[in-house]
Amino acid sequence: MKILVINGPNLNLLGTRESDIYGTMTLEDINANLEELAKELGVELMISQSNHEGKIVDLIHNAKDCAALVINPAAYTHTSVAIRDAIAAVDIPAVEIHLSNIYKREEFRHKSLISPVAYGQVSGFGPDSYLLGLRAAVSIANAKIGNS
Amino acid sequence: MKILVINGPNLNLLGTRESDIYGTMTLEDINANLEELAKELGVELMISQSNHEGKIVDLIHNAKDCAALVINPAAYTHTSVAIRDAIAAVDIPAVEIHLSNIYKREEFRHKSLISPVAYGQVSGFGPDSYLLGLRAAVSIANAKIGNS
Amino acid sequence: MKILVINGPNLNLLGTRESDIYGTMTLEDINANLEELAKELGVELMISQSNHEGKIVDLIHNAKDCAALVINPAAYTHTSVAIRDAIAAVDIPAVEIHLSNIYKREEFRHKSLISPVAYGQVSGFGPDSYLLGLRAAVSIANAKIGNS
Amino acid sequence: MKILVINGPNLNLLGTRESDIYGTMTLEDINANLEELAKELGVELMISQSNHEGKIVDLIHNAKDCAALVINPAAYTHTSVAIRDAIAAVDIPAVEIHLSNIYKREEFRHKSLISPVAYGQVSGFGPDSYLLGLRAAVSIANAKIGNS
Amino acid sequence: MKILVINGPNLNLLGTRESDIYGTMTLEDINANLEELAKELGVELMISQSNHEGKIVDLIHNAKDCAALVINPAAYTHTSVAIRDAIAAVDIPAVEIHLSNIYKREEFRHKSLISPVAYGQVSGFGPDSYLLGLRAAVSIANAKIGNS
Amino acid sequence: MKILVINGPNLNLLGTRESDIYGTMTLEDINANLEELAKELGVELMISQSNHEGKIVDLIHNAKDCAALVINPAAYTHTSVAIRDAIAAVDIPAVEIHLSNIYKREEFRHKSLISPVAYGQVSGFGPDSYLLGLRAAVSIANAKIGNS
Amino acid sequence: MKILVINGPNLNLLGTRESDIYGTMTLEDINANLEELAKELGVELMISQSNHEGKIVDLIHNAKDCAALVINPAAYTHTSVAIRDAIAAVDIPAVEIHLSNIYKREEFRHKSLISPVAYGQVSGFGPDSYLLGLRAAVSIANAKIGNS
Amino acid sequence: MKILVINGPNLNLLGTRESDIYGTMTLEDINANLEELAKELGVELMISQSNHEGKIVDLIHNAKDCAALVINPAAYTHTSVAIRDAIAAVDIPAVEIHLSNIYKREEFRHKSLISPVAYGQVSGFGPDSYLLGLRAAVSIANAKIGNS
Amino acid sequence: MKILVINGPNLNLLGTRESDIYGTMTLEDINANLEELAKELGVELMISQSNHEGKIVDLIHNAKDCAALVINPAAYTHTSVAIRDAIAAVDIPAVEIHLSNIYKREEFRHKSLISPVAYGQVSGFGPDSYLLGLRAAVSIANAKIGNS
Amino acid sequence: MKILVINGPNLNLLGTRESDIYGTMTLEDINANLEELAKELGVELMISQSNHEGKIVDLIHNAKDCAALVINPAAYTHTSVAIRDAIAAVDIPAVEIHLSNIYKREEFRHKSLISPVAYGQVSGFGPDSYLLGLRAAVSIANAKIGNS
Amino acid sequence: MKILVINGPNLNLLGTRESDIYGTMTLEDINANLEELAKELGVELMISQSNHEGKIVDLIHNAKDCAALVINPAAYTHTSVAIRDAIAAVDIPAVEIHLSNIYKREEFRHKSLISPVAYGQVSGFGPDSYLLGLRAAVSIANAKIGNS
Amino acid sequence: MKILVINGPNLNLLGTRESDIYGTMTLEDINANLEELAKELGVELMISQSNHEGKIVDLIHNAKDCAALVINPAAYTHTSVAIRDAIAAVDIPAVEIHLSNIYKREEFRHKSLISPVAYGQVSGFGPDSYLLGLRAAVSIANAKIGNS
Repeated sequence: MKILVINGPNLNLLGTRESDIYGTMTLEDINANLEELAKELGVELMISQSNHEGKIVDLIHNAKDCAALVINPAAYTHTSVAIRDAIAAVDIPAVEIHLSNIYKREEFRHKSLISPVAYGQVSGFGPDSYLLGLRAAVSIANAKIGNS
Repeated sequence: MKILVINGPNLNLLGTRESDIYGTMTLEDINANLEELAKELGVELMISQSNHEGKIVDLIHNAKDCAALVINPAAYTHTSVAIRDAIAAVDIPAVEIHLSNIYKREEFRHKSLISPVAYGQVSGFGPDSYLLGLRAAVSIANAKIGNS
Repeated sequence: MKILVINGPNLNLLGTRESDIYGTMTLEDINANLEELAKELGVELMISQSNHEGKIVDLIHNAKDCAALVINPAAYTHTSVAIRDAIAAVDIPAVEIHLSNIYKREEFRHKSLISPVAYGQVSGFGPDSYLLGLRAAVSIANAKIGNS
Repeated sequence: MKILVINGPNLNLLGTRESDIYGTMTLEDINANLEELAKELGVELMISQSNHEGKIVDLIHNAKDCAALVINPAAYTHTSVAIRDAIAAVDIPAVEIHLSNIYKREEFRHKSLISPVAYGQVSGFGPDSYLLGLRAAVSIANAKIGNS
Repeated sequence: MKILVINGPNLNLLGTRESDIYGTMTLEDINANLEELAKELGVELMISQSNHEGKIVDLIHNAKDCAALVINPAAYTHTSVAIRDAIAAVDIPAVEIHLSNIYKREEFRHKSLISPVAYGQVSGFGPDSYLLGLRAAVSIANAKIGNS
Repeated sequence: MKILVINGPNLNLLGTRESDIYGTMTLEDINANLEELAKELGVELMISQSNHEGKIVDLIHNAKDCAALVINPAAYTHTSVAIRDAIAAVDIPAVEIHLSNIYKREEFRHKSLISPVAYGQVSGFGPDSYLLGLRAAVSIANAKIGNS
Repeated sequence: MKILVINGPNLNLLGTRESDIYGTMTLEDINANLEELAKELGVELMISQSNHEGKIVDLIHNAKDCAALVINPAAYTHTSVAIRDAIAAVDIPAVEIHLSNIYKREEFRHKSLISPVAYGQVSGFGPDSYLLGLRAAVSIANAKIGNS
Repeated sequence: MKILVINGPNLNLLGTRESDIYGTMTLEDINANLEELAKELGVELMISQSNHEGKIVDLIHNAKDCAALVINPAAYTHTSVAIRDAIAAVDIPAVEIHLSNIYKREEFRHKSLISPVAYGQVSGFGPDSYLLGLRAAVSIANAKIGNS
Repeated sequence: MKILVINGPNLNLLGTRESDIYGTMTLEDINANLEELAKELGVELMISQSNHEGKIVDLIHNAKDCAALVINPAAYTHTSVAIRDAIAAVDIPAVEIHLSNIYKREEFRHKSLISPVAYGQVSGFGPDSYLLGLRAAVSIANAKIGNS
Repeated sequence: MKILVINGPNLNLLGTRESDIYGTMTLEDINANLEELAKELGVELMISQSNHEGKIVDLIHNAKDCAALVINPAAYTHTSVAIRDAIAAVDIPAVEIHLSNIYKREEFRHKSLISPVAYGQVSGFGPDSYLLGLRAAVSIANAKIGNS
Repeated sequence: MKILVINGPNLNLLGTRESDIYGTMTLEDINANLEELAKELGVELMISQSNHEGKIVDLIHNAKDCAALVINPAAYTHTSVAIRDAIAAVDIPAVEIHLSNIYKREEFRHKSLISPVAYGQVSGFGPDSYLLGLRAAVSIANAKIGNS
Repeated sequence: MKILVINGPNLNLLGTRESDIYGTMTLEDINANLEELAKELGVELMISQSNHEGKIVDLIHNAKDCAALVINPAAYTHTSVAIRDAIAAVDIPAVEIHLSNIYKREEFRHKSLISPVAYGQVSGFGPDSYLLGLRAAVSIANAKIGNS
């Protein structure tokens, strides 16, 4: 079982900037933790990051053989109908995650264009959001296999 | 380590009604799963349910010796400033959970009064939302102990 | 056939206060009229009143053997998602009634959270709203029986 | 005692179209039921239907010797200030009725321009809305006579 | 010089109803006053009233040989794009008048769809609004002739 | 195969007024072009124009033996729920057309009440909007026949 | 009989600036026309202009022996609650006038804070607005005397 | 003369939590100060606190022999139509108080549902708000007695 | 200890106009009562009134040696950012007062631009609002001295 | 004569996904139909598709020698000011097309940022929208040539 | 070449108050810097400050022989249509400046009534905003001379 | 000292298109002027332009050794949270510039997502906006060095 993990814009800077909001872990640290949990759960991860909205759309299109999608859309959460439509277009359950509790931040971050097409959301737990999101994704994928 | 789990209004009917939205598991089934995971994580649970807003405020006030709070505020998510203020008043991290993906439902369910005072949110994963929420709560509580 | 009649907050003061808006009949007078009509229509009534939102949710949950529900949610019309969800959760047709024409009053009274889950509404006819609501409820219940 | 019954636009198609929303009864069927109840209540009915806003205004103006008005303004509910002003201009109590529960439908149907000048509303009970509306109208007219 | 005077819906009831808002003069009284002033100003009047939006559009289309238009659109002030477009379509200056001060009344009466295509407005002076409107119309028409 | 073509208010003035917005072609010119294309496409046209909302509702009701409807609702685009409901009530696909690009004009013209019940829209191409709309209507009607 | 005429901010520049909107007449020209009409109507005028909101409030306070007030509040139309309250505080009927048709201009000019406390409005007729406003004021004052 | 003092949800935690907003005084301290001032003013106090909206409605209903009401509705300020209606229903002047300046806090706290039915408000002075509120209540009650 | 008392526009007319809203006391009466209470509390008052926004800004700037400010901004409550900024600029606690309960009046009076920079508010108690406001101001000033 | 055809994000998946909304034709099928019609109309097509907003901007910039532009902006319809500005910047008429009737879908799809700079729109006719759009584009381009 | 520099309300307090927002330079310091730069650029300055809206309108009116205007409207930025109209009325290019970045502050400060009539804006650079604004003003004035 | 200059979408077309809004200078002309001023101020420039949002995010990330950033985000001003977050993420002061006065243009251009994270803004001065922006950037960078 393969799980696609997508990181949106500016997440490549994680750990080095605005650590009061996003913490001190780098994206590499988070990826390492994810890989460890993936091993424990017996799934294979495909992890990517891009600052380009169109590139993220492409990544989602190419996820055909993945059982689920874990996505931190970052800034594109609030502005990208293209990513929303891409998730709706491919028939793969998506788990939307956020490092910070977006409801404690600026008004415009309270609204996610992605949420209505996602399976569920995990937000506010820092790097743990990724681990909880992966658990959720694997659980959904397993249930789907069980149902079929 | 004790964790308080609070269920809001109408959740006592779980599993018997509107199963297309909320699934077929009863609240008892969910509680059993929660207790199992709690044992695995080495924490003790205090689980409650009430249809009364004031009663839920009282429950939160009495959570003094709990390390964290997992709350599914249900209908009060969208209308209760009193529960919001109770969570802000007690110094215990709260994890807000929802069975359904509230962003796929009626417009008025997209806005949570609880989110800005919660530590984080898990929503849309059905009964798994409880398990993920409990994991998140234990992780936060452990980190807090580690920091002190 | 049993019909549950629920009266929301402040209706216990009926007839003694703000008679320019609500008239001079007391809730007891209305109940007597309702009982008389119920006898004529051959149904049994269970009448209750509460100022507590949670109590009204409880009452609706316990209406399992009733064929229909007549509810004047009063102030909770405009603020209670919990009562809305309770009505949606139990599989009993609900008739929403109001003594006054709520569209002639303050702006915030024009919006009912209950209406979208009610079968229909009767509003503005004073105590007659109850009688018309009871007729509607019995008619719906009879049609349901006829259909099954 | 004469009661004027006015049907707004498209109601002439009743029973033949969109039966999932409006049911299978024709306007003629409803009229027959109304006439039957009118006989029982001892009142005379004047029933009309028009697709023309201006024609409905004219009808209301000519209702001078009617004791009350039962009106299903249909589409004009949401757009006609002219009908609203006509009702306010003539000194006859008006009962506003709707076949469907307008609060379960599109957002723009939730707002009635007629409600603030109507005596009361009955909505959502299908053809029964007409019967309940007639009962209400007769009751108001009788009370008025009793008061004078 | 001919001036077209158009009266919108419900103005045929003037003087007999809601005299607290609209006064006790009938439309005939107002017309007589208008004719008297017209004689004084040396212009000919064409006066009409209709409750039908489409009829008012027709009237405006047929005003080709009029030098100006005095219109009290009444209820259609707030709802008719068709009348607005008709005024914009014919190349005749229009003076919009209102008996009552529409800004002291319900919120929805504060917005006129006609105002942006009218030459100017006179509102709130009761029957005097007609006389002032006629003076304005004649003055505009004269200026136009003087300019050409 | 018959196609009904309906023109809304003020379109009878086409070509003689506001030619900067609506061009210099008259409605007769447009009709001639339509008839020519109809011949080419092998369909029969029924063309009408009215300034009366109610009349347009009547026209739609009487379109029973038409395969499709091409409608330029003009001003009623933005104000008529009655025409919207008429289109929804009859089971005939409707193509909504506009001469001008309504999104370049006043804010209130950006919103069409007709669009959600139309099959599709063509707007902004001047008289060509009619020809494109007719092509679309015939294509839909043919597909429907092909499907049945 | 004395009539107070008040001109708001920037009207001292009239005739020399933005003549496309406000015309080429100076305030002195308008005042001369006003004085001429005043003589004809047999009333005495007190004419003033100020760019200071507080000064205009003072002027209104000192209008005790005036029978009516003609005011062109200019920019303060849209921002001054103080002038509104001053008009409401003194018991003198106020006629609000505008040179331009404020409903053809920027959105923020469509809303007048003064209108709800004025007797009526005249707007859009250029310098004629002053003359029509004076006629209206004298007519109201005369009616008042006639009534007492 | 008896004065009813009602404290809303979470105020039982006063002094022990969020002292940066609410100060370090406990509700007991405030009550002691209130009793002292009551003695000075010669009035008797009935002091209560509840986290339950319905309970607060009940308390207000039972205040029949009180001359005035001092209420800190806390979180229910912004969500309770039921408490608003209860205050309107009983004929006792109510003084609304708040410890903090609610206009310096979150947007949703700027709007009080209680204010339009209260006699007046005191907000932002910490525990002094209670004392000022009591003085106001006694003054109103005395004036009322003086008037009768 | 000196306390500055500022009265905004139109308050010089107090007692002579609109007595149904503002009562029959003149500003001189209120000032006398204030002086009496000031003597009792052992503070010195500087009382002023102006209809000019800029003058009120100047007065606040010159309040350097005052311990607190009691201000009834009247109409400027809702429109003056300049007064708001002046209060924020000088380092003196300000108590905002209103004679009437502004939340019972027009919608635009519900929003105060001054409240977020004031220490607290007292509104609705008529002339008592001034006395309560002075008590509050003295209490704050004393606490400040006590703290330093 | 060359016509540029641009397809926005996710349209590369056409025919394989969400066929209930977008039908079963692939983009290749549509392109073949377009080429066929282009041949019939005697024009040359340049067809492209991209998921990248910036790439679409580049494509528009490079359209210098094209006579017209047919664009289905897909998700970027609702979010891209950059594409809007690109269309406005190049002096080539643009025809905006949509497969689905965007006014029947989610609220956020009702608003197009592209429409105000497009020549006209065709929406809701499935693959026929492309053919109608091409016809419109050729007609505009021909008219332009005819005019020059 | 003369340049008029206008400072709005509260700027006379600069440097002594709220230095976290506005810095520690006084208005005199800024003026000295401005004079120095003016000398360098070969222009003459007329510098003024007022807390009175009407006074600022007067100042703008009297700027006839100035080549450009540099204005920091301070609080009046957000509330003064009178100053806006004054700038539009005189034919002198205006440069709007702000010390602080107004888009980082309260919501109501994000909207400037002055911006649409200003030539351009400089905001957020503290005292440098004045110097940059003066450079811009001189450049515009020079270009104007060059063009004539 | 190095300064990064970033130009957003469509600015590569500058000087050749829509010269009424953006003038006749090309981006190359502007760059030449910038280089000249940079030499005068003793700083080094890195100038770039991209139509791709993601590319602009990348550019900002790579600006590590720059002392300040001058950015004309063009269309992305109003839609890009990603660029906003990139600016917030890197610790370099950003000066936001615009050629046109965005407050004179369409409503949606009045709101900048970039402004709240920029140091300051310069807008409306055409190519001079770049020169003023560079001066501002150098001044901020120098002050920063002076402070450290």
